Amino acid sequence: MKNVLLTISYDGTNFSGWQKQPNRRTVQGEIEKALTTLCNTDITINGTGRTDAGVHAWGQCANFKGEFGIPVERIKDALNNLLGTGRRAIVPRDIFIKNVSLVPEDFHARFCATEITYVYRIRNHPRMDIFQRNYCYQVTAPLDLKLMIEGSKLLEGRHDFKSFQASGGEEKETTVRTINHIEIESKDDFITIAVTGDGFLYNMVRIIVGTLVELGKGNILPSQITDILEAKDRQLAGPTAPAQGLYLAEVNFGMI
Amino acid sequence: MKNVLLTISYDGTNFSGWQKQPNRRTVQGEIEKALTTLCNTDITINGTGRTDAGVHAWGQCANFKGEFGIPVERIKDALNNLLGTGRRAIVPRDIFIKNVSLVPEDFHARFCATEITYVYRIRNHPRMDIFQRNYCYQVTAPLDLKLMIEGSKLLEGRHDFKSFQASGGEEKETTVRTINHIEIESKDDFITIAVTGDGFLYNMVRIIVGTLVELGKGNILPSQITDILEAKDRQLAGPTAPAQGLYLAEVNFGMI
Repeated sequence: MKNVLLTISYDGTNFSGWQKQPNRRTVQGEIEKALTTLCNTDITINGTGRTDAGVHAWGQCANFKGEFGIPVERIKDALNNLLGTGRRAIVPRDIFIKNVSLVPEDFHARFCATEITYVYRIRNHPRMDIFQRNYCYQVTAPLDLKLMIEGSKLLEGRHDFKSFQASGGEEKETTVRTINHIEIESKDDFITIAVTGDGFLYNMVRIIVGTLVELGKGNILPSQITDILEAKDRQLAGPTAPAQGLYLAEVNFGMI
Repeated sequence: MKNVLLTISYDGTNFSGWQKQPNRRTVQGEIEKALTTLCNTDITINGTGRTDAGVHAWGQCANFKGEFGIPVERIKDALNNLLGTGRRAIVPRDIFIKNVSLVPEDFHARFCATEITYVYRIRNHPRMDIFQRNYCYQVTAPLDLKLMIEGSKLLEGRHDFKSFQASGGEEKETTVRTINHIEIESKDDFITIAVTGDGFLYNMVRIIVGTLVELGKGNILPSQITDILEAKDRQLAGPTAPAQGLYLAEVNFGMI
């Protein structure tokens, strides 16, 4: 059996999220269907992040174990053809396999991930753009970038992020996580917030962004970030920013 | 009865086109539903262009006759609220009413249009971008812009465009139309083709674009455009470019 790592981009708009569910179109479900055709046997994949409905990916990772009758370097094209995003597609579909590689037998895309980057896109413009509705969070009130950056610095490092965890995710042993860095950039009408860390709690990035937007609007002071962290109380952080703005951007694995 | 002109933008992705059809989500159907709620009586609108499924608009126009209990300047907000694209929407929906104005009693958005501009967006890049799949035509082979511009000049003016008409549209009295100008511009990975004319045959802009792409690929010579026009034979023109790249951009009315 070979162990294979896929790097995947997808537009989350028309998926009920990553995780396979009966009678729902999910990213995992679609990729497993294509792999099952390719390998002629049932295949299960392990994704790094279980993105919610509407959340996108530029660099989701997933591994699977299987046998196939074609060389590994041909899997990418074969899979993309099965997914409707092959070279001959006139209009591509919404999943694209960016890379396929062989990995050691004990590699697991979730447990071996050492660093994950999520990017959140905000469009800050007084008028909404309907063509952007699935691809960013449209904030029409002006945002003060300096205040957002100031507050974001207080989130970097190792903290208990219980205040930034939504209920409804799977039970975690600890709510302590490390954010390696938060990078906030502004270009044209867009603000992008890149959050890199060793792992994330349920909705953590979206709650961080919702809180930074409150900072940008002047509703919360940057210095209050420390109080919010210490309180370990979800009620004190800002609202959960919409799924549409979130992109699973990059996964690093220390071992490969 | 007041006669009211609406200027409308929409993302055509999730519509079965402009024209109302039973059991289908159409742009006309959604706007009429909102207007019927607003005016408390059945309302019918006349659109300038009957865009197909997947075709977008930045400046579609439509008029309707009706009475309403609120001042005309409040219709825009009221309609957008009913369409889910109001100021308080966190994530906007796919129709936005850009402008509302009163017009003379005999004004008709279709019959009074004197000049219509469609814009077609091509993404010319060796790799497809799944996030752009609904908003442009992704051509992966390199396109020679000079050849496309040279050929487009031969389409300008008054011609019989029978070779650039798809079957399936409504019967037209004549296939002679005037193209006032075609403007082709390139920026980053995108080529935009703006076609302005006094009216268009069924799929005419998409067949023009499909033909210009053949020119850009070197499959047709610019000088052949004149032969294609003269032949009055759909078979000689290029393929119909996908709906996803087309935008009804602007409508001019000589009289207002």
